[in-house]
Amino acid sequence: MQRDSRISMICVGDELLDGSIRDLNMRTLGSVLVDHGLKLDSSKVIRDGVDLISEALEKAVGIVVVSGGLGPTQDDVTRDGAAAWAGVQLAEDRESLETLRRRFEERNYPFTDNNRRQAFFPVGADILPNPRGSAPGFKLKVAGTTAYFFPGVPSEFQAFCETHLAPELAQGTGVRTRLYFHGLGESQLETRLDGIEALAKELGSRVGYRADYPEIEVKLAADSDEALESAVAFVESKIGLYAIGRDDEDISTRVGRLLMEQGATVTTAESCTAGGIAAKITDISGSSSWFEQGFVTYSNAAKHALIGVSNQTLERYGAVSAQVVTQMAAGARERAGATHALAVSGIAGPGGGTAEKPVGTVHFGLASPEGVYHQLIHFRVRTRERIRAGTVYSALAMLLWRLDGQSEHPNVRGPFAVEDVNTPEGITIETDA
Amino acid sequence: MQRDSRISMICVGDELLDGSIRDLNMRTLGSVLVDHGLKLDSSKVIRDGVDLISEALEKAVGIVVVSGGLGPTQDDVTRDGAAAWAGVQLAEDRESLETLRRRFEERNYPFTDNNRRQAFFPVGADILPNPRGSAPGFKLKVAGTTAYFFPGVPSEFQAFCETHLAPELAQGTGVRTRLYFHGLGESQLETRLDGIEALAKELGSRVGYRADYPEIEVKLAADSDEALESAVAFVESKIGLYAIGRDDEDISTRVGRLLMEQGATVTTAESCTAGGIAAKITDISGSSSWFEQGFVTYSNAAKHALIGVSNQTLERYGAVSAQVVTQMAAGARERAGATHALAVSGIAGPGGGTAEKPVGTVHFGLASPEGVYHQLIHFRVRTRERIRAGTVYSALAMLLWRLDGQSEHPNVRGPFAVEDVNTPEGITIETDA
Repeated sequence: MQRDSRISMICVGDELLDGSIRDLNMRTLGSVLVDHGLKLDSSKVIRDGVDLISEALEKAVGIVVVSGGLGPTQDDVTRDGAAAWAGVQLAEDRESLETLRRRFEERNYPFTDNNRRQAFFPVGADILPNPRGSAPGFKLKVAGTTAYFFPGVPSEFQAFCETHLAPELAQGTGVRTRLYFHGLGESQLETRLDGIEALAKELGSRVGYRADYPEIEVKLAADSDEALESAVAFVESKIGLYAIGRDDEDISTRVGRLLMEQGATVTTAESCTAGGIAAKITDISGSSSWFEQGFVTYSNAAKHALIGVSNQTLERYGAVSAQVVTQMAAGARERAGATHALAVSGIAGPGGGTAEKPVGTVHFGLASPEGVYHQLIHFRVRTRERIRAGTVYSALAMLLWRLDGQSEHPNVRGPFAVEDVNTPEGITIETDA
Repeated sequence: MQRDSRISMICVGDELLDGSIRDLNMRTLGSVLVDHGLKLDSSKVIRDGVDLISEALEKAVGIVVVSGGLGPTQDDVTRDGAAAWAGVQLAEDRESLETLRRRFEERNYPFTDNNRRQAFFPVGADILPNPRGSAPGFKLKVAGTTAYFFPGVPSEFQAFCETHLAPELAQGTGVRTRLYFHGLGESQLETRLDGIEALAKELGSRVGYRADYPEIEVKLAADSDEALESAVAFVESKIGLYAIGRDDEDISTRVGRLLMEQGATVTTAESCTAGGIAAKITDISGSSSWFEQGFVTYSNAAKHALIGVSNQTLERYGAVSAQVVTQMAAGARERAGATHALAVSGIAGPGGGTAEKPVGTVHFGLASPEGVYHQLIHFRVRTRERIRAGTVYSALAMLLWRLDGQSEHPNVRGPFAVEDVNTPEGITIETDA
């Protein structure tokens, strides 16, 4: 396959256009192509219909991957559309028929005439066995166009891409990486990275962004490792402090790796996130090695009873304060006997805001062997959901900063003794603008 | 708008074709149209590019909704493509500029030239204010085609569809409702609802499904309240037991309302979900009235230390057992002094499965004034993430069932005294295609 040959996709199915299900296959194909240094030029979603399918195929140039419409039901007419496009008949394939029959017998499913249809293919098609299911796919060449027909079931579609498409794709691909950040908005990020486009051009590398609150992803691609790493170095010199992960190492994985390496453990004391931080820390398998327990202390009574926050402090400063959140961290660390403890207390809204503590005000505490750290963040994001999601990420990012042993932070203060904590200024994180 | 006018969609963005993100907007638009008795004819996904966008617009007929490419970054060129299509210039809109500026100032957020680009629109366009964010959308008529340009951020796109598109859609809308269910697979659901299509036709109502794991949504629309409610009654008679919400009352809101009405409170003791249930219960404002605290007991030591599970029981039956999970619930209920306590313990994987306790095995405990309830569910879903998400929903659904005072449940057993709990059979929830 030429690197410059055009590649497009056709997704077939009423259910995709009626909002019944979400299409997952375009993303799968896109990733497979990117991994091979290729690009999906465009994708089209059409309804089940012989004419619609053959017309869409007429318009395709180069390589086209067709997803869906190969099932056993009457409205699965992709094979008929393919035959119409190629101007050939459908013919039954004995071998496929036997395989299908056997598969159904093994499962004691009734083998209906509908199922039998799945053994019919346009004359001249290469039949592609299904690595994950029963119905085969096929490949058909007409004039300058090569069309691959894969089942729409996401797990089967992916298996077909890997088994029957990827091996035929170009190998020469170049290198790429994805860097994940948290704590700045998309346009803020672009401003800080001003000049990277120029650098990228100079290096022959490529840059892309993706804002997926509360994460921002920076995608870098280049033709050599050197070019790629210089681009990475540039990005990290500008916004490294906001880094939360790279490639397959997301924030939870990175937190876990560092805790493992340091033989450390962590516990949590959560008010406004009410368990979200603990759930995030444990969203990778094996997290029991660094996380044993966490405290969800939503009420003041619970903050006092479970992790020993002083009622006097609660009364004097309020639950959403530097003093309380650092006592929460210190208390949780002691109760759990963990190396580090993360605590958050904030106003997630929509109710509960006041003039001096508006919705989005969140205090963060981190208790570590050397003392407690604190930061205050004002989340200027639209919804309770986003304030809580941002708080989870900022808490994990605060722990990452400590585990990385970074010395300078624009917002985190400490280490202090708990009794020395006072009320500070905070920064604002806005990710919705 | 005529009911027979063609409706298509154009999604703009390299990130969609490179597999960086999943498109959510086609599904949103499809649902909105179905709700109004209309149909999305086709959808196209193209890369960021002025020519690509204007060409796609050339080919559009009737109504076309364009998603994405209105952001502040350099590769957001949808507005330029629209202007090229209409053969007009871009002009700055004072009012939009001021609104944007004000919004940024209010948030002490730097207003860059990039952001300023969002105040430019093709001459002659109707500017559509953003109900959910900063950047406006717009509407443009060229010859027989009306094009709506909405931001690609899913929450904003949805708000635009509801605020700026739906009101202009065909009159034949009538009444509609959405029912949310959890605990059966899509095919299970269709089997149980066998006959609804016929009933719907007879009533002149419309039915649609939407699988959004761990929820299944059944959408009903009709021309009269009577027709709608008979359809609802039919659905509830078949799968009412799996109901977790309706319209704006999602599972957390419904749990909260019932607890409030009953003057009851709830606490949580979580192993495999590690805080996810507590976070879900509190994802609505005001939840402090029925939720005070929760326990994340990931390790056996924590299960014993925090909520008094007996070490003997842990040793004898293992952490993932009916005996342990009901002790967790009873212990948490007592420690927290709550009316009800939900507990879960399971194997979320990918590691940790065994022959008799494979990945996906989850035990649920509910402690209430009259005793403890138990259920065992085998999740046959693909990922750790899905097992944990399903567990959170099943736990809340179990509490809902108790709060609704329902007497018959296909899977939940009890009330028992904790010491009478034994090891039962479970059901399987299979939600992946």
